Amino acid sequence: MKVIVLGGGRVGGPMAMDLNKDERFEVTVADYSDKALNNIKTKCPEISTIKKDLSNPEDVISLVNDYDLAVNAVPGFMGFKTAKAIIKAGKNSVCISFYEEDPFELDQLAKENNVTMIMDCGVFPGMGNALIMYLAQKLESVENVMVYVGGLPVVREWPTEYKAVFSPMDVIEEYIRPARCIENGVLVVRPALSEVEHIFFPQIGTLEAFNTDGLRTLLKTVKAQNMKEKTLRYPGHAEKMTMLRKLGFFSKEKNIEIKGMKVSPLEMTAQILFPEWELKPGEPDITIFRAIVEGIKDGQKIRYTINMFDRYCAETDVISMARTTGYTATVALRMVVDGVYTHKGISPPEYMGKYPECIEYLLKGLKERGVNWEICREK
Amino acid sequence: MKVIVLGGGRVGGPMAMDLNKDERFEVTVADYSDKALNNIKTKCPEISTIKKDLSNPEDVISLVNDYDLAVNAVPGFMGFKTAKAIIKAGKNSVCISFYEEDPFELDQLAKENNVTMIMDCGVFPGMGNALIMYLAQKLESVENVMVYVGGLPVVREWPTEYKAVFSPMDVIEEYIRPARCIENGVLVVRPALSEVEHIFFPQIGTLEAFNTDGLRTLLKTVKAQNMKEKTLRYPGHAEKMTMLRKLGFFSKEKNIEIKGMKVSPLEMTAQILFPEWELKPGEPDITIFRAIVEGIKDGQKIRYTINMFDRYCAETDVISMARTTGYTATVALRMVVDGVYTHKGISPPEYMGKYPECIEYLLKGLKERGVNWEICREK
Repeated sequence: MKVIVLGGGRVGGPMAMDLNKDERFEVTVADYSDKALNNIKTKCPEISTIKKDLSNPEDVISLVNDYDLAVNAVPGFMGFKTAKAIIKAGKNSVCISFYEEDPFELDQLAKENNVTMIMDCGVFPGMGNALIMYLAQKLESVENVMVYVGGLPVVREWPTEYKAVFSPMDVIEEYIRPARCIENGVLVVRPALSEVEHIFFPQIGTLEAFNTDGLRTLLKTVKAQNMKEKTLRYPGHAEKMTMLRKLGFFSKEKNIEIKGMKVSPLEMTAQILFPEWELKPGEPDITIFRAIVEGIKDGQKIRYTINMFDRYCAETDVISMARTTGYTATVALRMVVDGVYTHKGISPPEYMGKYPECIEYLLKGLKERGVNWEICREK
Repeated sequence: MKVIVLGGGRVGGPMAMDLNKDERFEVTVADYSDKALNNIKTKCPEISTIKKDLSNPEDVISLVNDYDLAVNAVPGFMGFKTAKAIIKAGKNSVCISFYEEDPFELDQLAKENNVTMIMDCGVFPGMGNALIMYLAQKLESVENVMVYVGGLPVVREWPTEYKAVFSPMDVIEEYIRPARCIENGVLVVRPALSEVEHIFFPQIGTLEAFNTDGLRTLLKTVKAQNMKEKTLRYPGHAEKMTMLRKLGFFSKEKNIEIKGMKVSPLEMTAQILFPEWELKPGEPDITIFRAIVEGIKDGQKIRYTINMFDRYCAETDVISMARTTGYTATVALRMVVDGVYTHKGISPPEYMGKYPECIEYLLKGLKERGVNWEICREK
């Protein structure tokens, strides 16, 4: 089967290489960056590459038409358009592109075209959603869902002690957008970066966790009395980011005048932070996920804990962000090909969690790639 | 005598009003801002005002020609040009404008024109320099000179807990420019914001002190084994500013591109911080100065401590920054008029400290205005 990977970046590249290991797949990567494509070519010559600007949906449709499957790994700002184009081309796909638009707008179209599209197929949103749904279904009622997730550099550099493979603009967006959560059955909104708490992780030490708007589809798909998501960073990060926000460095208002031109502080701040936050080649990163799911079963209070901790792989030079996000998507794609997951239309990742066989498939596939998700149950 | 005050801002205005109380003086204020001039007019109608752009030195010369004395209270960036114009006009003057250029470049010209110009005639540089020189002269050898100085808002607003009447650009400059100091008789340079220590002041509580480049002329005029100046802020300020500097927000390099135009982060940062750091009308401020001068006299180790703590005056609505800086200059001007200080040429404030009668004059004049400088001596 012919697979097209749209976006050959630091996550898309490893996804293509993982898919290439599968005899069934003939893999092609499309990207506009020669650097990205050459990087893949040198590591894995069997993969075909196409230099292409994917910003025009029409081009994407005609490109995807020649393939049987698609992986959507483009930057967030063009993710929705690309997803729509893949559906129009009538191909099954998985998507790790994190966009703001509501993917369910595409559900009808996907059903009409009889395609399966698994969206947000990473860590959280991603495998985390699937496991929370899986556990929620084991319970008669869900009391609490508490999610902690973060990707961090191993080496901590003062002051922000943070690095990522996506743009500072996307990170800052998490620090601006109000965080929706469920408290006592009611949807409430808390400021981003608020309610900082400290959590000890034996593998990396004490981290801080603060509110961000990460629940997204789970707010509708899982019914719980209390549900909250927090982002993990090294202690002190939240206060520093709150300071920048309070001082106005994250403002989108064009309230700064440079040589008669109105600009927004955020435009400039994102540029200033880019070199600071860029995870350099070979720099090791980690990914941490922990969720607590509490509820009642057979009249008994049950507490499940989900844990995942992953590190950069020096041997393959694949960053943890790519391992945990990309491999979830590539395993999910296989699951669709194998007919284990057959839902037509748009699937948020938690839909996979409705089927124990899917969870089993995903856990096994990720374990084979060294990404270990663990569920423990306490009475 | 006719006195022209160049610059009628939040320090220049109160200076004009103070001079106006003196029968001998007929006071005129020149400023480009109607707001500033009207503010003076309403508070003190006897003062004449002239709306004038003082950026052109030729205009300043012809303006000052019609007066007997001048006070240079223009913004720092135009201070040197204005000082030169006053000298060319051949009038005695005091200057509180804080500029980067070396005032001694004007010494020859001032001597030729037989005028007295007392520069940096504020707190520090200013009265602090004069008192340090005065005490240094009492000693056979000066071991240590340690200076702590700062102007702060009474009300602390997170995160920076700072306000000022001068532009953020000037404040940030203090946080960038390397701090020159004397250690064991050698001139050394320390990074600005470095060597943070905490000092308790009974009137305001614990403050932090960090290196800034405030010694300036004292580095040459007073001979000491160790001499250091530190700026006072509320605790935590230095780390936040160091963070902004480290992240690149204080960079003067035009390394940011906004719509094809190269701009420097500092240009934008100064604009962002302006509303945050602006001391609003009626907002109370304080000024703190402490210096320790240690040395040997008659083979004995002697320690002098200089203290000054001043607050905003609600009755006259004069901010402490204007009281402590402006009144030092207006008293010094009277001292020149009274023939107590007669040095021709450029005088850094410490020159006044060479004459006990001048120190007496200054201390008395400031005390009359409620600005109390205290010297205590310990064996």
